[in-house]
Amino acid sequence: MFAPRATPLRPKTLARLFGLAVGAAVVPSLASEGGHSDPAAPIVLALAIILVLAKVGGDLATRVKQPAVLGELLVGVVLGNVTLVSEAVTGSPLRYFEDLSGNSYLDMLSRIGVIILLFEVGLESTVGQMMKVGLSALLVATLGVAVPFGLGWLASAFLLPGHSVYVHVFIGATLTATSVGITARVLQDLGKSQLTESRIILGAAVIDDVMGLVILAVVTGIIGAANAGTTLALGDVALTLGKAIGFLVGSLLVGRWLSPRMFTAATHLKARMVLLAFGLGFCFLLAWLADLIGLAPIVGAFAAGLILEDVHYRDLKDKEHHTLEELIHPISYFLVPVFFVLMGMRTDLKAFVAPGVLTLAGALVVIAIVGKLTAGLGALGKGLDRLSIGIGMVPRGEVGLIFASIGAGLTVQGEKVVDASVFSAVVVMVIVTTMVTPPFLKWSLARGEASKAR
Amino acid sequence: MFAPRATPLRPKTLARLFGLAVGAAVVPSLASEGGHSDPAAPIVLALAIILVLAKVGGDLATRVKQPAVLGELLVGVVLGNVTLVSEAVTGSPLRYFEDLSGNSYLDMLSRIGVIILLFEVGLESTVGQMMKVGLSALLVATLGVAVPFGLGWLASAFLLPGHSVYVHVFIGATLTATSVGITARVLQDLGKSQLTESRIILGAAVIDDVMGLVILAVVTGIIGAANAGTTLALGDVALTLGKAIGFLVGSLLVGRWLSPRMFTAATHLKARMVLLAFGLGFCFLLAWLADLIGLAPIVGAFAAGLILEDVHYRDLKDKEHHTLEELIHPISYFLVPVFFVLMGMRTDLKAFVAPGVLTLAGALVVIAIVGKLTAGLGALGKGLDRLSIGIGMVPRGEVGLIFASIGAGLTVQGEKVVDASVFSAVVVMVIVTTMVTPPFLKWSLARGEASKAR
Repeated sequence: MFAPRATPLRPKTLARLFGLAVGAAVVPSLASEGGHSDPAAPIVLALAIILVLAKVGGDLATRVKQPAVLGELLVGVVLGNVTLVSEAVTGSPLRYFEDLSGNSYLDMLSRIGVIILLFEVGLESTVGQMMKVGLSALLVATLGVAVPFGLGWLASAFLLPGHSVYVHVFIGATLTATSVGITARVLQDLGKSQLTESRIILGAAVIDDVMGLVILAVVTGIIGAANAGTTLALGDVALTLGKAIGFLVGSLLVGRWLSPRMFTAATHLKARMVLLAFGLGFCFLLAWLADLIGLAPIVGAFAAGLILEDVHYRDLKDKEHHTLEELIHPISYFLVPVFFVLMGMRTDLKAFVAPGVLTLAGALVVIAIVGKLTAGLGALGKGLDRLSIGIGMVPRGEVGLIFASIGAGLTVQGEKVVDASVFSAVVVMVIVTTMVTPPFLKWSLARGEASKAR
Repeated sequence: MFAPRATPLRPKTLARLFGLAVGAAVVPSLASEGGHSDPAAPIVLALAIILVLAKVGGDLATRVKQPAVLGELLVGVVLGNVTLVSEAVTGSPLRYFEDLSGNSYLDMLSRIGVIILLFEVGLESTVGQMMKVGLSALLVATLGVAVPFGLGWLASAFLLPGHSVYVHVFIGATLTATSVGITARVLQDLGKSQLTESRIILGAAVIDDVMGLVILAVVTGIIGAANAGTTLALGDVALTLGKAIGFLVGSLLVGRWLSPRMFTAATHLKARMVLLAFGLGFCFLLAWLADLIGLAPIVGAFAAGLILEDVHYRDLKDKEHHTLEELIHPISYFLVPVFFVLMGMRTDLKAFVAPGVLTLAGALVVIAIVGKLTAGLGALGKGLDRLSIGIGMVPRGEVGLIFASIGAGLTVQGEKVVDASVFSAVVVMVIVTTMVTPPFLKWSLARGEASKAR
């Protein structure tokens, strides 16, 4: 095999040959155009690097008693800044990791990863359990949107007095939406996804996403109307809200009816791993539907996880000897680190040193954190750890950035709604709220448990 | 939760709203540019469709006693021709599945899928077991390259008398390389990956890939030299061969030394699913290295699977309570069907009706099959099922098409080396050899077992 006897090469010669070949590609290119090479090659190399370094980062984080996801984020931050450091040290920047962070295939894998993560987290709860905390979640979400929005508006009016009211509205809006990926992962790392507090956070994040959608419709509607000299079409906004709520209620109702029937039918299929195919298929279908309505795909994936219950696929589980969780787990551990390492890589530390940004950025960070901590007070019921609920709502992610990007593309009366320094301040706010959540959430959950035990 | 009480919508209204939203996207677009929608949404919808239909196809195939992979391929063929059928029936073609088959993200997932499949198959054998069948594999590969090459040349010379010798050489070359994905999957479907015959097929396919690389270097070198009026640089060809053999021998030697040490070190990491991350990382690294050398990434992934042995990661397995196979399995069942359904989708049935193709195509199909059946005779040892070995080597896939594409881009003395009708004939040969393998391999393996049992 591999004809070793036919090879007269000695180990040394081999090593040299091998060394040459590897040496030629010390800095592998992502856009390798070498003849008929497989486009998957640079992607799987990047995946190998990400998977292994994510574990190293997770290990280091765990050793200093932090959730593994913080390690994955920080590994990403380090890799993402290799370009800057290598340029400073050697004069010639090593662009490999910069290229990775912008690679669309890795981005796609990371998006599929976070969809699967929220599905996994959803599987740990049922629709009934979520309904029980529904009112708390609604209040937390409402407070968590209203307080940062109001405070953000005020701060902007105070710090940017020369700008129009639209700027203040937009800055308020960027502070509203929770990015639940980080929190979901921290809860999973700590094995706390099934706490009442966790369910309130996750439910509030879903409602947050609906509210974010409405706010976006309202804010862009107002600005569009201001430019056109008309007024906001409230009917359009109501339709947006109606579709979102319709999706959530509809998918829960239809899903609960469909899911047991689907799995019963699937039990009769003569094929392997039918449970995995249909479970993932259901998750992906709802993720797509959510996106169609204008919600985040992770909201649909989470709803799919809530809807699917063990009893729906008991026969299939008995036939295939695996629960859906057991099957999703390895896929999640393959793809989810890609999401967090990439998120870290995209952390643009240069935003921190952009001129004239720090005051506004500092104000946004404080409001973002205080606003969501206040939201925690909305949770109803005795003995709840409201601090942890608030901290769980703190991370802002892509949604805040999406708002800012849309603002950057809008002009009112010749003024850009979000200019470069405001955009940098939003980026700083997103980075800080993302990075502080894992350690503080771990700390507050431990504190909450200790006080409950007392 | 989800504020159901706050919603005054009745089920009917909801259904109408929902119906509207879904109706608007009956034919979902892959390039949805609707505002801030997630680029992952159309991809996960496509994955949902592929996963579920792959199981339906697998079920139907199993019911008619065929390997599941044939069902997945045929589901792909049906989907891939929805465009043609819908155009014929309604006049307006439904392009959705045509778009899917060309989507680069799905293509990437399918490529990662087949890399993981070969890794999985490699895990079922050890380097030692492969070495035992090494000489057989070498002989099978050599015969399986030489016979189709020679016969292909002759047939081309006979059927295309007006063309230059370079055309004949290229046609011979397209017939040489085995595409082992289908065979590996059939063996896995049937639980036969660990037969001696299976090891010979897989080993021969690896050697085939090396030989294909050398043939490509020689053939393009000869044509380049012919155009430049020089002679073939044999040194370049020797270097290509040396690098390929160096990679295989080097990766086996270095890998066997590295693997136990790597997993011992990894055992100390305080993180979850370390085995999965390092196992996949090793697979991906070798897949990338193989590609770097000019071999197919699946050859590297297969080598990685051979190298990794349970004893290397016994401590990690004990710590995490899972074998690597158990962890890879769900990932493979998620991504591998994407590969085969897409392969089916890309089956261009129009190649069969291209004018003036059928005679050449028929000849190529016969030679492709007879050539590899002859190769099975190269297996040494008593009581081997040489027919199954030959059938396992029959599928030609992307390698044959790559040769044909390169030929289509080359001209010698103003003549295209591979013109449109020759290209179509090669496509037909690839389709037929791919589709006939699953049923025939299943049949011959059952026959072989029956005769052994007698």
